[in-house]
Amino acid sequence: MVDFDFDLVVRDGTVVTSFDCFSADIGVKDGVITAIGRNLRRGREELSAEHQLVIPGGLDPHCHIEEVAESGSVQEETFETGSKAALAGGTTSLICFKPQWRGHSIKSSAPDYLERASRALADYSFHQIITDPSPEVLDQEIPTLLALGVRSLKVFLTYDPLRLSDGQFISVLSKAKQLGMMVTVHCENYDAIEWLQNALLAAGKTAPVYHAWARPVVVEREAAHRAISLAELVGQPIQVFHVSAGAVADEIERARKRGSKVWGETCMHYLTHTIADLEKPHFEGAKVVCSPALRDEGEADRLWAAISRGTLNVISSDHCGFSFAKAKRDPGSSAYGQGTALLNDDGTPAFNSIPNGVPGIETRMTVLFNEAVTKGRLDLPAFVRLTSTNAAHLFGLKGRKGDIIPGADADLVIWDPTREKTINVSDMHQAIDYTPWEGYSAKGWPTTTIRRGEVVVRDNQILAKAGTGKLLPRA
Amino acid sequence: MVDFDFDLVVRDGTVVTSFDCFSADIGVKDGVITAIGRNLRRGREELSAEHQLVIPGGLDPHCHIEEVAESGSVQEETFETGSKAALAGGTTSLICFKPQWRGHSIKSSAPDYLERASRALADYSFHQIITDPSPEVLDQEIPTLLALGVRSLKVFLTYDPLRLSDGQFISVLSKAKQLGMMVTVHCENYDAIEWLQNALLAAGKTAPVYHAWARPVVVEREAAHRAISLAELVGQPIQVFHVSAGAVADEIERARKRGSKVWGETCMHYLTHTIADLEKPHFEGAKVVCSPALRDEGEADRLWAAISRGTLNVISSDHCGFSFAKAKRDPGSSAYGQGTALLNDDGTPAFNSIPNGVPGIETRMTVLFNEAVTKGRLDLPAFVRLTSTNAAHLFGLKGRKGDIIPGADADLVIWDPTREKTINVSDMHQAIDYTPWEGYSAKGWPTTTIRRGEVVVRDNQILAKAGTGKLLPRA
Amino acid sequence: MVDFDFDLVVRDGTVVTSFDCFSADIGVKDGVITAIGRNLRRGREELSAEHQLVIPGGLDPHCHIEEVAESGSVQEETFETGSKAALAGGTTSLICFKPQWRGHSIKSSAPDYLERASRALADYSFHQIITDPSPEVLDQEIPTLLALGVRSLKVFLTYDPLRLSDGQFISVLSKAKQLGMMVTVHCENYDAIEWLQNALLAAGKTAPVYHAWARPVVVEREAAHRAISLAELVGQPIQVFHVSAGAVADEIERARKRGSKVWGETCMHYLTHTIADLEKPHFEGAKVVCSPALRDEGEADRLWAAISRGTLNVISSDHCGFSFAKAKRDPGSSAYGQGTALLNDDGTPAFNSIPNGVPGIETRMTVLFNEAVTKGRLDLPAFVRLTSTNAAHLFGLKGRKGDIIPGADADLVIWDPTREKTINVSDMHQAIDYTPWEGYSAKGWPTTTIRRGEVVVRDNQILAKAGTGKLLPRA
Amino acid sequence: MVDFDFDLVVRDGTVVTSFDCFSADIGVKDGVITAIGRNLRRGREELSAEHQLVIPGGLDPHCHIEEVAESGSVQEETFETGSKAALAGGTTSLICFKPQWRGHSIKSSAPDYLERASRALADYSFHQIITDPSPEVLDQEIPTLLALGVRSLKVFLTYDPLRLSDGQFISVLSKAKQLGMMVTVHCENYDAIEWLQNALLAAGKTAPVYHAWARPVVVEREAAHRAISLAELVGQPIQVFHVSAGAVADEIERARKRGSKVWGETCMHYLTHTIADLEKPHFEGAKVVCSPALRDEGEADRLWAAISRGTLNVISSDHCGFSFAKAKRDPGSSAYGQGTALLNDDGTPAFNSIPNGVPGIETRMTVLFNEAVTKGRLDLPAFVRLTSTNAAHLFGLKGRKGDIIPGADADLVIWDPTREKTINVSDMHQAIDYTPWEGYSAKGWPTTTIRRGEVVVRDNQILAKAGTGKLLPRA
Repeated sequence: MVDFDFDLVVRDGTVVTSFDCFSADIGVKDGVITAIGRNLRRGREELSAEHQLVIPGGLDPHCHIEEVAESGSVQEETFETGSKAALAGGTTSLICFKPQWRGHSIKSSAPDYLERASRALADYSFHQIITDPSPEVLDQEIPTLLALGVRSLKVFLTYDPLRLSDGQFISVLSKAKQLGMMVTVHCENYDAIEWLQNALLAAGKTAPVYHAWARPVVVEREAAHRAISLAELVGQPIQVFHVSAGAVADEIERARKRGSKVWGETCMHYLTHTIADLEKPHFEGAKVVCSPALRDEGEADRLWAAISRGTLNVISSDHCGFSFAKAKRDPGSSAYGQGTALLNDDGTPAFNSIPNGVPGIETRMTVLFNEAVTKGRLDLPAFVRLTSTNAAHLFGLKGRKGDIIPGADADLVIWDPTREKTINVSDMHQAIDYTPWEGYSAKGWPTTTIRRGEVVVRDNQILAKAGTGKLLPRA
Repeated sequence: MVDFDFDLVVRDGTVVTSFDCFSADIGVKDGVITAIGRNLRRGREELSAEHQLVIPGGLDPHCHIEEVAESGSVQEETFETGSKAALAGGTTSLICFKPQWRGHSIKSSAPDYLERASRALADYSFHQIITDPSPEVLDQEIPTLLALGVRSLKVFLTYDPLRLSDGQFISVLSKAKQLGMMVTVHCENYDAIEWLQNALLAAGKTAPVYHAWARPVVVEREAAHRAISLAELVGQPIQVFHVSAGAVADEIERARKRGSKVWGETCMHYLTHTIADLEKPHFEGAKVVCSPALRDEGEADRLWAAISRGTLNVISSDHCGFSFAKAKRDPGSSAYGQGTALLNDDGTPAFNSIPNGVPGIETRMTVLFNEAVTKGRLDLPAFVRLTSTNAAHLFGLKGRKGDIIPGADADLVIWDPTREKTINVSDMHQAIDYTPWEGYSAKGWPTTTIRRGEVVVRDNQILAKAGTGKLLPRA
Repeated sequence: MVDFDFDLVVRDGTVVTSFDCFSADIGVKDGVITAIGRNLRRGREELSAEHQLVIPGGLDPHCHIEEVAESGSVQEETFETGSKAALAGGTTSLICFKPQWRGHSIKSSAPDYLERASRALADYSFHQIITDPSPEVLDQEIPTLLALGVRSLKVFLTYDPLRLSDGQFISVLSKAKQLGMMVTVHCENYDAIEWLQNALLAAGKTAPVYHAWARPVVVEREAAHRAISLAELVGQPIQVFHVSAGAVADEIERARKRGSKVWGETCMHYLTHTIADLEKPHFEGAKVVCSPALRDEGEADRLWAAISRGTLNVISSDHCGFSFAKAKRDPGSSAYGQGTALLNDDGTPAFNSIPNGVPGIETRMTVLFNEAVTKGRLDLPAFVRLTSTNAAHLFGLKGRKGDIIPGADADLVIWDPTREKTINVSDMHQAIDYTPWEGYSAKGWPTTTIRRGEVVVRDNQILAKAGTGKLLPRA
Repeated sequence: MVDFDFDLVVRDGTVVTSFDCFSADIGVKDGVITAIGRNLRRGREELSAEHQLVIPGGLDPHCHIEEVAESGSVQEETFETGSKAALAGGTTSLICFKPQWRGHSIKSSAPDYLERASRALADYSFHQIITDPSPEVLDQEIPTLLALGVRSLKVFLTYDPLRLSDGQFISVLSKAKQLGMMVTVHCENYDAIEWLQNALLAAGKTAPVYHAWARPVVVEREAAHRAISLAELVGQPIQVFHVSAGAVADEIERARKRGSKVWGETCMHYLTHTIADLEKPHFEGAKVVCSPALRDEGEADRLWAAISRGTLNVISSDHCGFSFAKAKRDPGSSAYGQGTALLNDDGTPAFNSIPNGVPGIETRMTVLFNEAVTKGRLDLPAFVRLTSTNAAHLFGLKGRKGDIIPGADADLVIWDPTREKTINVSDMHQAIDYTPWEGYSAKGWPTTTIRRGEVVVRDNQILAKAGTGKLLPRA
């Protein structure tokens, strides 16, 4: 009887780590990478990666999935559909958002959330959203999150009823500092948006594109500087979520020059889409209503420059989807938080009541590969860092996720850098009925996804079962 | 009978205007400068300015005088004492602050304020403070201010009950834009100060110096960037009041580089005093409790650099005084807005209840002359611009105040640049019983102050009567 | 017999000084402004400026006129024609360039230069060009320039045989520091230009536009930073001449932030012309061959921004002309320094042998007025500062030229801000047969030019005689 | 007979790569890393690294060794002694400098250089110094360097007779661009240094400290900006050598923001030593005479900030040594290039004739480890990147040197992060008789050095023989 050194060997690929590329085999045992080397001994299972890349499975640290609101409304994407989509796109780990309902304890908010999450096929963890930092929440509930492995809090500086006042935000920063947690922040100035929105609606400007008019860059820059300043005051690290413009990245860069621990994330759609997409006819613009809003042409170049300088070091999906046919187009949908008093002539809702969010969990890695690597903007290790390593380091998964090193979970993607294919929602696994990248032709696709040593996707076929994802405690 | 060309000729001085110095006589008729020239014909009255400078009377655009609060408490300085002090120091015009009490209309706030102001000996105008921008105030009351010649609004982003929310601030900016008014802003983040203050008090840190600990630079920088951003959003010019630190001036400079109409003011005390003054024993630190707070050594150099680059172009007094013996030292004084729960061991009040404010109306010009001109930091026209011209341009008094040109009010100061004297509160005219510059030796003093052609101070003797100051309507 | 107070009164104009505008009469006696005021007594001569502006006569501090080269070649413009053109355009004072021939003493270079200059109708002074700072020149000749009132030296970092090595430049800076002189610098990197030029010519790229390709912005930015650095090393103030691009202005701004005494000048053509003008057919591009070269569209906006920030505070003509029919088009012209080996197919010379220079002495003020004031970019006092005051301050003419103050020379221009006219070389007084602004329509023209109290131009007719200009000693 | 999978296994260490740390064994075969993993099979030789780090062998890309000058003078350090010192300090690869003598072809310069180099114990490659870029050198000799694996050129902008004119520098940049080589640059302004030096000597200022006075930061900043500008002109990547000050790093950062391919190196001594070390009595200051010179206190903080921002990404030794007893102290030494006319009173030479250079090849890694890792400034992967990975990437050794990956040369250092020891020249292997870090106590030392799988140093004992180093061809 043969005694195999490995359960699985991925052989002859070009291994891409967070800093290097080299030819090697990868040996896996008990779901963990145990060796990286030349001519490794045979494994029980063997996969050839010849002429292909082997990269760490993606880590998408910004996914909105099944966050049930107090009203009962919830994103269409379930942990099952969303994680299938993630795996198919080469992403093996997710960080999602545990809700807190304002006026409720964390515990009593969305009480079935963990159960819902347990249906996931990808590994998962959470940022805890804080919308109501009462003394009880701060002093009693947040400390208990550590036991669940939740090491990061998410706050909103805009949106009702999610947003915190500056004072509440400071209390969260202060608590996070005490507990060694990271704080992530949605930065936009609520009052400014309200004022612009009211002015636009009063002027009859209700089409989807006015969503962007109501949220100009200055509104995001202001809030980013404020968030950074208050974090500096407290001495607490933060990550600025979904940076959409160069001026916002500049605030992060200035802070880093002052020595502050501030990081910036951007999302794939800010790199490929612009305000022009919001102007598409037949209400198509509603498909890309998200906040911060899409920007003018030219901003993407500034974001790429900030990425190459390391100011923005994570690219997430901010996956948050609602189907166009049902939710995005229909004012009667439960996704519409508030009653929609205002309608356009064709019966579609005014911009301010279109549910925010863009689905991107499944396309994130292939679109980024095409934009960054195929087009020559970045090298392969940079692609790896942006899609997994940096997020793993920031969010307490270093050593376990985000790189190909001994001891790490064997989350691997065999990636064909030469395969060309056009994105078509009918090939996809997400629940949402459209993708903003419909018709986008990418060169560079995942061919096999391995999660903890198990082949979970082969040629776009999902092989894993619901509920096989693991909750990831973070250090 | 001789027909005089002039009522008054100031002869043979070195005239300093906003841009030049030259030898000339100045001829005055009907209170107005009618000629500047060599060998002017005789005036009914003649003054020699030989070997002295003749400069425009100072315009102090930031003086808190007799702003009666709803509680009835009021600064000790009256329009009579304050304007005597101003004239004695070479300042002939003041811009003071018309109060609005929260929950009240403008009209019903401090209803006797204009009557009080009519006792002034210097000319005066007002910034209207807005603490409660209700629709009535915005739409009905603010427009009527124009008739009174009030062209500027003042808002606070901190202090209870003065501060505005971002939304209220935007509404004021928007109204000002519609009416062509200027908006001046006190920039500090209220919530951040509250948090720091509570933490300090909880730790038993109650001495005057903790006032500065509770209001670090970042708190001012944050609010300045926010104020600028919201002003950029609306497209409304603002002046950032009392900039105390280089980092705050940098925000103004960045905005100006973006093309925004933002101006910055600093005050004399930020250029001569530091946090060390707050640490003086025997509660002496209380004398320089003001907001923003005094800064570390080194900040003044950054402010001087910002002044020489034109980023800060007005130097005011922010005169706001309370006597040390009575008000500043005594928790029972009516100047203490809130009940003072906390006391130091010696019975003096905790830092957070010391009434804010530093008296500087009388010393502003001589201290600045000494620091700027005598010490060689700036030239004479710069001194004139900083003490009068720039403020006159910003606040609608261009052509009337702040320069020596035909048609301007004959507000002139004969200034001896070689006279050396030590500041001593017993020589002064203000009502407040101390000055932060006690014992400061300055070279360069006013010898004669002329207001609209009338000699109102000669050798520190006030010659004018109360009530001879005029309300200045602004264009 | 009436005893007039004044020889001349300019009455009822809107007087524009370096900082203010006001209605006043200006009284002149013995060529000097003796009074500015309302209702001045009658003068022997009276001029009405009603509904017009009265501004200080322009000071053009950068004019190349009759600088005879060792070879005998010389610009076509003579002091007589050039100063007629200046006066007609509203410019009453010039600073020109006294040549030094390499290998010669100053004295033996262009020995008839002062005699030529004495034919001027405008007042004039000189920058002394230094091309050969031998010990004799430095130690014996330069000090004697002070007696002539020459207080500024001009050096070239490019052009053969004009350019200095870094070591020579340092020796000039060091001498200037010792004597309290200003140093002005033409900043371009010679070796870089040579390399690019040779590469372009080798590739057959000979048309005028390649002049700009051979002198990209980086070549000017490099030399500007070098000049500034060496000036900082020595501690000597410099003015960077003819800044053509935002990146060069940035170097000046950075230096000023470091506290260095560096000033920047730009020229009118960089604000209105672009590289597209070099591409005009029929060799027309040759008309705007100058160094630094014209830039891409967009640079002018950066220059305007630098002007409004005060980084560039003088706008000169850099008048240096050669007629197109004769000199610029004809390789046989004596203006062609070197033999012109290379010709285009049509017999015109290759770009590298087109004589450099653009004529602008006559149009500078009206074009700037139109671009700056009429188009709303700058206010009237800024126009005055840029066209005369700032140069007067920098070059030792403060108090005498560049402002309307008692004691200054009565150089005044009555300027009609509403007059519209199209520039046409046939209306002009310069010797050169073309203007780059041919067909340019300007709103705002001089109607009367007064030089030291004498009307020298009225309605474009020259009334003064050759030789009535005065040599201006500078302080 | 056992068939070993590996020749050597380094077991149970904490492996530090360029981006990660993890526990793993490293398997080596035929001098190459063939596996990194957990529980690797046995090797023929086994080394325990338990409780220690395993890092890539250092790559010192800036070492001056046995560069025979035309005069015959040569650094004392030989390839044998220098590489022993390197290995003992944990550095397994060197990039040294192949000389070109001005007026000579490359071939005829130092003709025995390669033979000398062949005595090395460490692996080695060369930068080719270009001092005389004649057409033959450029067109015939430089291309042949590629066959030798030399892919980088080194130029000096100062020092006689090494320095290039701007034109020569451009010709080198241009040739490098054509051939795909890197260019490294010593940036200082020669003329400025000459001028300062002469002034200091003329004033009798001859002590070692005046070396720094003669080479202030501005001299380096100027040349760095010039080098960068000319490289931008040509479109050629460069590395700025031995950046000594924040202002120089700023130039690199600005260039990178413009998108230019510019990198910066600093050296260990700029991070630990200051101008105060030049002031030590008894001519001790001569020990740290190097160029650029040591800087004021405070500069090191700016350099660390630039390192943490990635602006400076290589830390080399710039090893260039002369013994103090012999060469540095003695004006008669052959190391003194020029005759030393000037002597101090005690017979020591004036600063300008002290041979430049600081020995650091042996201490570089332990001093950096102590300053960066032990003191908490940087993490372990950053230490690896700064000491080997980044230089390997820049200089064509990626995949072979500078990281622990399959396929790379098995250059490994077992490093004890807890060992504390004081540096003492008597423990060292270099030929030079002193070290600037004498008495410096470091925590973190190499315990075993492995070069291509062979243990070459154990407990500071050199085990390898001269001549076992290999010439490294670079890609």
